[in-house]
Amino acid sequence: MVITISDERFDRGWEKLKEIDGEAGQRVMESLQDIAPDLARYIIEFAFGDIYTRPGLDLRSREIAVIAALTALGTARPQLMVHIGAGLRVGLSREEIIEIMIQMSAYAGFPAALNAIDAAAEVFAAEDGASTE
Amino acid sequence: MVITISDERFDRGWEKLKEIDGEAGQRVMESLQDIAPDLARYIIEFAFGDIYTRPGLDLRSREIAVIAALTALGTARPQLMVHIGAGLRVGLSREEIIEIMIQMSAYAGFPAALNAIDAAAEVFAAEDGASTE
Amino acid sequence: MVITISDERFDRGWEKLKEIDGEAGQRVMESLQDIAPDLARYIIEFAFGDIYTRPGLDLRSREIAVIAALTALGTARPQLMVHIGAGLRVGLSREEIIEIMIQMSAYAGFPAALNAIDAAAEVFAAEDGASTE
Amino acid sequence: MVITISDERFDRGWEKLKEIDGEAGQRVMESLQDIAPDLARYIIEFAFGDIYTRPGLDLRSREIAVIAALTALGTARPQLMVHIGAGLRVGLSREEIIEIMIQMSAYAGFPAALNAIDAAAEVFAAEDGASTE
Amino acid sequence: MVITISDERFDRGWEKLKEIDGEAGQRVMESLQDIAPDLARYIIEFAFGDIYTRPGLDLRSREIAVIAALTALGTARPQLMVHIGAGLRVGLSREEIIEIMIQMSAYAGFPAALNAIDAAAEVFAAEDGASTE
Amino acid sequence: MVITISDERFDRGWEKLKEIDGEAGQRVMESLQDIAPDLARYIIEFAFGDIYTRPGLDLRSREIAVIAALTALGTARPQLMVHIGAGLRVGLSREEIIEIMIQMSAYAGFPAALNAIDAAAEVFAAEDGASTE
Repeated sequence: MVITISDERFDRGWEKLKEIDGEAGQRVMESLQDIAPDLARYIIEFAFGDIYTRPGLDLRSREIAVIAALTALGTARPQLMVHIGAGLRVGLSREEIIEIMIQMSAYAGFPAALNAIDAAAEVFAAEDGASTE
Repeated sequence: MVITISDERFDRGWEKLKEIDGEAGQRVMESLQDIAPDLARYIIEFAFGDIYTRPGLDLRSREIAVIAALTALGTARPQLMVHIGAGLRVGLSREEIIEIMIQMSAYAGFPAALNAIDAAAEVFAAEDGASTE
Repeated sequence: MVITISDERFDRGWEKLKEIDGEAGQRVMESLQDIAPDLARYIIEFAFGDIYTRPGLDLRSREIAVIAALTALGTARPQLMVHIGAGLRVGLSREEIIEIMIQMSAYAGFPAALNAIDAAAEVFAAEDGASTE
Repeated sequence: MVITISDERFDRGWEKLKEIDGEAGQRVMESLQDIAPDLARYIIEFAFGDIYTRPGLDLRSREIAVIAALTALGTARPQLMVHIGAGLRVGLSREEIIEIMIQMSAYAGFPAALNAIDAAAEVFAAEDGASTE
Repeated sequence: MVITISDERFDRGWEKLKEIDGEAGQRVMESLQDIAPDLARYIIEFAFGDIYTRPGLDLRSREIAVIAALTALGTARPQLMVHIGAGLRVGLSREEIIEIMIQMSAYAGFPAALNAIDAAAEVFAAEDGASTE
Repeated sequence: MVITISDERFDRGWEKLKEIDGEAGQRVMESLQDIAPDLARYIIEFAFGDIYTRPGLDLRSREIAVIAALTALGTARPQLMVHIGAGLRVGLSREEIIEIMIQMSAYAGFPAALNAIDAAAEVFAAEDGASTE
């Protein structure tokens, strides 16, 4: 019974993760299977199953928050790249994502903004490459 | 002539600062007049005159970004408090501001979220006190 | 049924939180009831119900890790104080807690170590005051 | 008229950026032209046109401050490399730059100092390679 | 013999600490005597006896570096206050110290600069109060 | 005489560094010989000769603290990798190291934990490769 219920929370999170992070998010979860499968489970259950499914804030606003925070922290380039893709998927334009990073220059300095924009350029280029193949 | 133009940029920023940060923001600027008046001018001209007035992102989204970033950084409680007030002023509800901070628990840890919520509680209580006087 | 199971995870976390963080931890959870009760629930369910109850690492080692991390980050004094108390409760001596902070001076600098030791002094003094009342 | 004045501020910043950051700085600004040209403009106008041209502190002291800060933060290797070059250009010796980083080991820990010195080694090697070609 | 030599290194550091940090630094060391006397010893021996006495960089430059780094980190207000006093003692003017903090606004954001300037205002006011008594 | 005594402290540190960090630590020290030999000396004398040899905490606990702190900081991947190896050498299992990183997800967020686990995967793979050659 526990398993059934637990599966419900996991399933809800897994669907949300696929909706938001797409294949990039799934790949991160798969890469954890050998070394830390429980961390993948917690991310799916807690971050996506519990938090992202909360009704109090739309996904677009949640991704603005995450992109801003990871830009300001400056320690999470791989995750920032996943969330730049997630931002695009939930309705942010490229220009809006860049705008969030420019906004951060006043709160975390120019280096934080520059490094985030470099990550965005890499994500955008990968998308353009994929779409022209 | 330079002064006139410079005033234009300063004036635009000062209006924006009053609109977004209200009296709390003005007080910060006034507190700088004796010790670092030029920093106040840069904040008004650059952060508010240049960035906040950009058309690419609405003020509500900009405040989501700033509240998220200051929550995650955890080093700027006074500024977070100003921006909690700013968030309310540009249309975020108390519940949405708390939701942003809960979202941050997955990206910057529970202590960052807890300290931001403590700052929010202080801002909300001050507002409630002011409105019942 | 969901509620029952959810209660099981919550109950396990709540017991663990009381065991580790004692009254200080309970007070933090209570302080969240008006403003962010769900964050309290997540901390109890995820941090304590899921993670602290994992078998792979004893509680003493987990508290060494948390005290070291909060010392190095330098942005979470209230939480560091709770975990200094937690460290004592799970078997660390005062000397060992100070030793962790001294160790951090080489990895995060002297200011981080000094501020953590100041927090420890405050916790120790409160304990001594309580025990002599 | 606005444009003329604005150009004056931009021109002053651009000259300062070339003086301080040299070709490395120009390349960063060019790399932003497609994705975030306004951020390049803000860096030139605000960081270089407004701040670096202020009379209150000589360029050598400003670069000591920036190299120290980026070493301590540990999140801005590309910008640290630009400012190691800038430090050399405004009169710091290689030994003085390394000395700043060693000083930081006491304030931000040995890892921060080690990573900065690794960045310095890369800049110095590139300079030596360029000068022997 | 070890003790004699060790004393030599300690004595050199203690003299340097008194020269740079003055009474504020001595008070920090005294406050550690009950709880972590060895950390005080390491700060004196390593930070002051080993590093500050190195010939490669003058004390003024070292304090510029430390003030800039602590401003940017934003996690060490008590230590920043000690080093604002130290900066004044080794020859920086109040205006130069503020200038370093304004410089940091471009590299670590306005909140970091604002909080450092608030610390400076507190140090300057304490000095003015002391000198008018 | 000074040299003899200094050698004693250096020798004690060097033995400790070899015991804890193994060849990876020695390589870091060697890489500093051209550019910052004194920083290598300070790391050996202070971090290893002074701190790691202190009796108050066993090496296993010290490495738990360091792995946790570097995971949470997120700015020191090369040093984290050295200390993952060090953890294994002083008796932590791979599972315990991963467990420390999972614990950190609650205190510094999932990105910090994910990046640390990625570093651990790289260290473990290098070890497996070496042992099957």
